[in-house]
Amino acid sequence: MLKEMVENVREKCPLIHNITNYVTVNDCANVLLACGGSPIMSDDVDEAEEITSICGGLNINIGTLNQRTIPTMHKAGKKANELGHPVVLDPVGAGASRLRTQTAKDLIDNVKFTVIRGNISEIKALALGEGGARGVDADVADKVTKENLAQAVSFAKEFAKKTGAVIAITGAIDIVADGEKAYCIYNGHPMMSSITGTGCQLSAITAAYVTANPETPLEAATAAVCLMGVCGEKAYERLTEQDGNATYRNYIIDTIFRLTGEELEKCAKYEVF
Amino acid sequence: MLKEMVENVREKCPLIHNITNYVTVNDCANVLLACGGSPIMSDDVDEAEEITSICGGLNINIGTLNQRTIPTMHKAGKKANELGHPVVLDPVGAGASRLRTQTAKDLIDNVKFTVIRGNISEIKALALGEGGARGVDADVADKVTKENLAQAVSFAKEFAKKTGAVIAITGAIDIVADGEKAYCIYNGHPMMSSITGTGCQLSAITAAYVTANPETPLEAATAAVCLMGVCGEKAYERLTEQDGNATYRNYIIDTIFRLTGEELEKCAKYEVF
Amino acid sequence: MLKEMVENVREKCPLIHNITNYVTVNDCANVLLACGGSPIMSDDVDEAEEITSICGGLNINIGTLNQRTIPTMHKAGKKANELGHPVVLDPVGAGASRLRTQTAKDLIDNVKFTVIRGNISEIKALALGEGGARGVDADVADKVTKENLAQAVSFAKEFAKKTGAVIAITGAIDIVADGEKAYCIYNGHPMMSSITGTGCQLSAITAAYVTANPETPLEAATAAVCLMGVCGEKAYERLTEQDGNATYRNYIIDTIFRLTGEELEKCAKYEVF
Repeated sequence: MLKEMVENVREKCPLIHNITNYVTVNDCANVLLACGGSPIMSDDVDEAEEITSICGGLNINIGTLNQRTIPTMHKAGKKANELGHPVVLDPVGAGASRLRTQTAKDLIDNVKFTVIRGNISEIKALALGEGGARGVDADVADKVTKENLAQAVSFAKEFAKKTGAVIAITGAIDIVADGEKAYCIYNGHPMMSSITGTGCQLSAITAAYVTANPETPLEAATAAVCLMGVCGEKAYERLTEQDGNATYRNYIIDTIFRLTGEELEKCAKYEVF
Repeated sequence: MLKEMVENVREKCPLIHNITNYVTVNDCANVLLACGGSPIMSDDVDEAEEITSICGGLNINIGTLNQRTIPTMHKAGKKANELGHPVVLDPVGAGASRLRTQTAKDLIDNVKFTVIRGNISEIKALALGEGGARGVDADVADKVTKENLAQAVSFAKEFAKKTGAVIAITGAIDIVADGEKAYCIYNGHPMMSSITGTGCQLSAITAAYVTANPETPLEAATAAVCLMGVCGEKAYERLTEQDGNATYRNYIIDTIFRLTGEELEKCAKYEVF
Repeated sequence: MLKEMVENVREKCPLIHNITNYVTVNDCANVLLACGGSPIMSDDVDEAEEITSICGGLNINIGTLNQRTIPTMHKAGKKANELGHPVVLDPVGAGASRLRTQTAKDLIDNVKFTVIRGNISEIKALALGEGGARGVDADVADKVTKENLAQAVSFAKEFAKKTGAVIAITGAIDIVADGEKAYCIYNGHPMMSSITGTGCQLSAITAAYVTANPETPLEAATAAVCLMGVCGEKAYERLTEQDGNATYRNYIIDTIFRLTGEELEKCAKYEVF
């Protein structure tokens, strides 16, 4: 299944409208190009609907959120819904401030999302109203482990049911779930958390994947999560003793650029629940 | 001719005021340093004229355009005109939204540009009112080829006459034209389109080149376009089988940092029409 | 002394709230991760106090300054003061425009800063009201040399007394001073000025260092300045003949990621005045 997902993105080259933060925006653009998609970044409310209309999918990311772009997010989201385009939400820092938590909730109430992707603390903040985030990183207390995995899977399925979106909770173990089925993914490397924006990058890739594979959003989001994890592993193997997080960041994007569908199929490690 | 252009930039170290997008801004700053210039990024209307005044040239780029910075672009552009500073326009995404097309047109009506640099779809949107852009990339139907080159050259010369600016249309074949004369440049590598912002980078470099070579804007812009293409070729040769677009992006900037005037003279491939 | 400073950052992993420019923001985030800290970037006035409150320290950088974020800087700064959190100011481009000079001065009048870090022209603009900056770079006439070092040290101590902040003036020779004591640091490499944002990166690191070493801000800021310089030297040694400023930027961050307290202790070159 993963092989076809990868190849569909490379063949269709989905154009993705990104309303995103200024910290990781360049990485998001380059990673979209690396996976076979095409990026456009635009956040002014006056062009939101036009830009969304010429694209195939929309990626909304609330990092460095500011008042100016919130109406753009709503307008673009509604337009994408009207056109039947997939929409991804990355609720960066939900739980860390009322502005972010409330904006993410309002977006979920007003826009139908195809995928909501965040760390466990962000997703808990949205689902349960708990604010356990350590800034933009997950709180250690929230961590998904082998011990609490069954519980976390149920939680993801519940929130998927409630929102109608595929829920992707990423961390050491990733969970991608709709209301009925969940994939737990064991790829990735701890050093990925030493790079800013691997989560943002994954959300952008996810938008490309669900846009190029519109009939199977659960599997497409799973493929995107596996891709990021596998590339994190492979890029880590390239590192020398002198390399750190800057080179690692470049190598991950390089690996995404090169990875074939066969390689993803071979290296992805997941279970279905 | 190209050798002197390169050396003038390295000698004079022109300070360039950039009003630009947040996607590729870091690359624009680093590439200006790499080619021998010096960058300052500033977009608040209250400091526009002061910042323009201490610089030698101005680079206006409408990527991630928003209402806040449009008055800054006009104010800085007019100030640069008053002071006789070269001004470059990069109409990123013109044709993709009315906001971008109209803003670029208004700027052209109110500011005298030294160079306007874009892809063929962006330039067509401004010259002909056609909106064929695929987001921020050129439409395949618009592509400049050996077959339609004579026609594209005429089109570039016409638009140069109309605007009084040197027109640089970049793609697989690049055209740099004023009203009388055009250079067609055959350097570059297809993989350059896998990196976000090579166009933005080129516009920033062009601003440094026309600022350090103020008497010959057509040749200075040609040198900048050749430089980008030659460095794209040389950087490609450094890539290993594991490298992708992230390493390629770094190697292009590295190559610009190292390239001498002699090397550019030797490797540039162009014809005059 | 330096060894403990480095290790405290890696152990405590201080969370730093950054209100910063969009040119170097990604590098600031990655360099904070590299040195052992954790970044959050946030600039909307509505979440300023909440974000500051969950962090351990605050880093205010006025590059690409705009009207929208000035109230955020004041609000976050005051909140950090209330909570006893260290606050760093990077007055990027002070002296280059009235907006930047005045904003930096207003911030100094209203917020108690732990460290103010800039180049000599920026610090002179704030201390003496002189505007000698060449954009965001120091004016050559202002340069700190062996000849004028004693005078520059006195100047730094005076401004430290006046503001109550540790003053870090960075350049070929760096000075870090409080009202009584100054460290002059001789690490670094001239090629560091070919990369955009090494100053911004240093300010972010400094925020992490003074947050993890709250009792000794003078020594913590000195350690941060030594770290940047030593890593600039070590990264330079890795460069091949084909590498330029893009690879150098990555290698500096890589080196920061890897550097141990022992290595810093061994390689730092400074005198006390």
